[in-house]
Amino acid sequence: MGGMLISINEGVEDMAHPGYENDKAAVLKRLARIEGQVRGITRMVESDTYCIDVLTQISASTKALEAVALKLLHEHLAHCVADAAAKGGPEAELKIKEASDAIARLVRS
Amino acid sequence: MGGMLISINEGVEDMAHPGYENDKAAVLKRLARIEGQVRGITRMVESDTYCIDVLTQISASTKALEAVALKLLHEHLAHCVADAAAKGGPEAELKIKEASDAIARLVRS
Amino acid sequence: MGGMLISINEGVEDMAHPGYENDKAAVLKRLARIEGQVRGITRMVESDTYCIDVLTQISASTKALEAVALKLLHEHLAHCVADAAAKGGPEAELKIKEASDAIARLVRS
Amino acid sequence: MGGMLISINEGVEDMAHPGYENDKAAVLKRLARIEGQVRGITRMVESDTYCIDVLTQISASTKALEAVALKLLHEHLAHCVADAAAKGGPEAELKIKEASDAIARLVRS
Repeated sequence: MGGMLISINEGVEDMAHPGYENDKAAVLKRLARIEGQVRGITRMVESDTYCIDVLTQISASTKALEAVALKLLHEHLAHCVADAAAKGGPEAELKIKEASDAIARLVRS
Repeated sequence: MGGMLISINEGVEDMAHPGYENDKAAVLKRLARIEGQVRGITRMVESDTYCIDVLTQISASTKALEAVALKLLHEHLAHCVADAAAKGGPEAELKIKEASDAIARLVRS
Repeated sequence: MGGMLISINEGVEDMAHPGYENDKAAVLKRLARIEGQVRGITRMVESDTYCIDVLTQISASTKALEAVALKLLHEHLAHCVADAAAKGGPEAELKIKEASDAIARLVRS
Repeated sequence: MGGMLISINEGVEDMAHPGYENDKAAVLKRLARIEGQVRGITRMVESDTYCIDVLTQISASTKALEAVALKLLHEHLAHCVADAAAKGGPEAELKIKEASDAIARLVRS
């Protein structure tokens, strides 16, 4: 882990370079589409659309959000977790525990 | 079921009075909050927020969308499906098949 | 609804004739297969099978259990809930609330 | 990575020492309980148990299977993936891709 200063620098670098950095444009595009889907659901409810059709659109939005989450998770494992594992030590363990907890939240949501 | 005219009238009534009619304001409020959550996720990605924090927010939005879906589904069963079941016939069967399919999409999404 | 005696008989009948009655053999066949899948997972762990292969088998068993649940739920809506809705009253409301709660448990599991 | 011989030995070692090695007894105990739960569901269906009670038991079994999967996945990340990431190279990428795919199957099941 080296000294305190290096730790801080690494922390700063992590913040500026999240795992999804190289796919940021694609992730933002997907999120814009999901925001549009949610706005569409609002309009459906406002205009008294048939329940089942609203439910179909909610399922589609949920699936789209999950797909973004799986994409971010993969990039997180491939970059943040892999880098921490390569360095080893308690930071690696922490990163893996944190990723496992995020996966559990995702599976249960 | 009666004649064609009655069927059409029933259809029109269904459209104007979906199962969630009495909870429309509450449903719209929840959807507005979810739209805000998704916009929040976009801002998080734009500002390079740490992957795990983005994932936590996505899980929260997915759960919130599911809660809206479960609410709509309950109202749909309590009104549209119950009404159709009370009348019986092929319309009842159709409504139940349709609800089961929506539940399956929800469970798998 | 008739008198008390008839109500009691209906209750007894419900117990003896659950919604899945006509598909019982098919449901039992699926459950036997799932029990075999779980036993297979046990053998995989006993013989130190690679984690990912164990996980693949667990996902398959989870999906198979969900498919049985969706089947039972459909039969429950088509028979128990539809019958209660046709009769109306508090029993109908109870059955629909009960079904919605089961759907919520399923979506969240 | 060393020579071919070492690589082969590592491969053999991986097979004999999956990520869950140290928790094997606990994992097997959980699986035995799940097998018992599935047998219990079979008995419920055989004796015409009320649909909703069968569904409750299925949701419990699904949740228990998911908990085992999350446990195995955590151990896999903490051992197999972390070891591969520490070594780096294409094997690390492969392991991470494989883990991401397993997570996706889990989220979608």
